[in-house]
Amino acid sequence: MKELRERILKEGKVLPGDIIKVDGFLNHRVDCALMGRIADEFAKYFNIDDVDLLLTAEASGIALTAICALRYGKPMLYAKKAKSDNVEGGLFTSEIFSYTYKKKVTLLVAKDWLQPGTRVLVVDDFLARGEALRGLCDIVEQAGAQLVGIGCAIEKGFQSGGDRLRERGVNLKSLAIIDKAEPGNIVFREDE
Amino acid sequence: MKELRERILKEGKVLPGDIIKVDGFLNHRVDCALMGRIADEFAKYFNIDDVDLLLTAEASGIALTAICALRYGKPMLYAKKAKSDNVEGGLFTSEIFSYTYKKKVTLLVAKDWLQPGTRVLVVDDFLARGEALRGLCDIVEQAGAQLVGIGCAIEKGFQSGGDRLRERGVNLKSLAIIDKAEPGNIVFREDE
Repeated sequence: MKELRERILKEGKVLPGDIIKVDGFLNHRVDCALMGRIADEFAKYFNIDDVDLLLTAEASGIALTAICALRYGKPMLYAKKAKSDNVEGGLFTSEIFSYTYKKKVTLLVAKDWLQPGTRVLVVDDFLARGEALRGLCDIVEQAGAQLVGIGCAIEKGFQSGGDRLRERGVNLKSLAIIDKAEPGNIVFREDE
Repeated sequence: MKELRERILKEGKVLPGDIIKVDGFLNHRVDCALMGRIADEFAKYFNIDDVDLLLTAEASGIALTAICALRYGKPMLYAKKAKSDNVEGGLFTSEIFSYTYKKKVTLLVAKDWLQPGTRVLVVDDFLARGEALRGLCDIVEQAGAQLVGIGCAIEKGFQSGGDRLRERGVNLKSLAIIDKAEPGNIVFREDE
């Protein structure tokens, strides 16, 4: 997606540790008009009529996914990362490693809200090593739900998460794949 | 807001500890079409032309706020609850107590994204004791930004958070104020 690549080039910062900082428009301050155009772009790659529910993980996936859900007229569900008083009853859980926070995190989804057979489109803002997406796919499988595909805004192509999902046959579409990231030099993978 | 009160009556559950569970449409599974109508309702109470930025706290405020921001054509900013590798440079911070998770939490906002003079509408899904909103107001003040008002979907009127903010002169609008919550008996405050 040309507009997204241009925003990354213009506003993204490469920090030590292969971190690509885009917190001015994606995951702290959020340009919600851009999120709307990302939602429209995903709709070119996935048959939204075949989707019952959009699934993401808190916290940074929620803004984009909510806007996709509004655009598509579908409900969304977000996996929580800590058990709160508001969660009761049966849970699907999946343990992942958060490289952002350098610790193990458990994704939680109440069984009430993910039924067998539900056709799920997973959406996330960022795909690096793919741990959050692995956890979400695991929960979809535990529920006996059906994974229609995964839409990501930005993928770090130089890490393994995206390609590993593609090798497993997952219908993954990332709108900007970064194959190289050095300060002042961000290189994107060619669009398919 | 009649539709919101009806959804609470139909789907809300009152759990021990004054917990009102609405995780089927507000803060786990999210009915994004309803969030769009809540956004339209807020726009009746606040002059959106006077707003530069929408501010909320992760995680449960993000879906509603993102949809408001899309509708209004404004950016959003969400306070984070933990420092990640992606946050660098100066931060506004405010320590709050999370009754949901029974622990102290620090709200964090990068100084880069909240400038002096910015006119801020704070949005949240739920207002109980008002700790998260107190922290957000504190951050707005630290930044020298201007609080236009606070829009909440649901307020627990029988707890003190909302009334304390009103006493301080904050322009707070909650779309459903619950004055009493017992299993099978949820009573709303009359609309103004």
